Amino acid sequence: MFRTRVHNLLVSADGYAAGDYVTLEKPIGDAGALFRNFDGRVIHGVHGTRDPVTADRAFFSMWGQGVGAEIMGRRKYGPQSGEWPDDGWQGWWGDEPPFLTPVFILTHHPRESMEFANGTSFHFVDAPAAEALRLAREAAGGLDVRIGGGPSTVNEFLEADLVDFLHIVIVPVVLGSGVRLWDRLAGLENRFTVESVSTSSGLTHQLWNRNRTV
Amino acid sequence: MFRTRVHNLLVSADGYAAGDYVTLEKPIGDAGALFRNFDGRVIHGVHGTRDPVTADRAFFSMWGQGVGAEIMGRRKYGPQSGEWPDDGWQGWWGDEPPFLTPVFILTHHPRESMEFANGTSFHFVDAPAAEALRLAREAAGGLDVRIGGGPSTVNEFLEADLVDFLHIVIVPVVLGSGVRLWDRLAGLENRFTVESVSTSSGLTHQLWNRNRTV
Repeated sequence: MFRTRVHNLLVSADGYAAGDYVTLEKPIGDAGALFRNFDGRVIHGVHGTRDPVTADRAFFSMWGQGVGAEIMGRRKYGPQSGEWPDDGWQGWWGDEPPFLTPVFILTHHPRESMEFANGTSFHFVDAPAAEALRLAREAAGGLDVRIGGGPSTVNEFLEADLVDFLHIVIVPVVLGSGVRLWDRLAGLENRFTVESVSTSSGLTHQLWNRNRTV
Repeated sequence: MFRTRVHNLLVSADGYAAGDYVTLEKPIGDAGALFRNFDGRVIHGVHGTRDPVTADRAFFSMWGQGVGAEIMGRRKYGPQSGEWPDDGWQGWWGDEPPFLTPVFILTHHPRESMEFANGTSFHFVDAPAAEALRLAREAAGGLDVRIGGGPSTVNEFLEADLVDFLHIVIVPVVLGSGVRLWDRLAGLENRFTVESVSTSSGLTHQLWNRNRTV
């Protein structure tokens, strides 16, 4: 039983999950308020850190469990658009990208794959969601595939009904602008069973499990 | 930053965390009501199962994250007491114990270690809590140590102030008898910061993080 999973997708009260105006200096664009209580370490597990094991961390720590490949949109990988400049860009994460698996990056401008010593590799594919998922499944070695975002990519996979599990974190901030998660998804709740849990930090974790058709 | 952690300890409304009268036929003794909504799979992660990813599962799935060794009491390992009978007993779990790490079993009757192909090994030690923890830390390869129970063992480590993180699951049942968790621990809450989260299943997850002394 393999799943296509989304984890730790922070969403504002008004439905934005990333900021506009992403630049090299502003990897999350104008969405600072969404991330202000986080330091990028939300994907870590519950060990190897001095941070207490909070309920939020319990939810966040599902991120890597049993995941064998990720699919991400180009805007998560870098701020460029169009043809790739010849600038040696390897993504935001330096020599140790935290993914530790093959990562498939959706782009209309494929380029050569990159491999890192820690098990991460980047592969650039110009393909619709279903085809990218087929490639990721093949690479995942029998484990699950994570749709890593950004929100436009998650939206595309939800619209194609290719997401089995969706973990959304509602952050009580109002962004006013940014990249919308829910466009063209009216009635999505009918395809899922949803559980919501709020924690003492003010966050609400929503766990969307797709209803089985068999 | 290494921790000594307790996970998934089910506790009844009246403070019992295991049943009396454990026998070969009744591994959990008379505590069936505590476990009636579980099938032993609470230690699994969120993958490799058809079960939906519920909030309960998110909490349960912390069990194995970054754990390099376990310490358990003899009553978790088997129903025998006193000298070991020559019956080939390898624990309740057959040829594939789910621990995947060294496990230190506290007993006044040490015996030869056992090793399993999946990485689990059983080591039998007659030692107080602090000494057992020292052995487990050595074996954990820089990862955390889990105190695996039963409740008497967790109680002993709490009394000795050797637990950094304690995940308790309050199950809304009244057992009336069994093995008590909280004896001799009055005021324990002063040593910890506690967060409680209830889920739609009726369970309450309590996360006890030990206050730092530095």
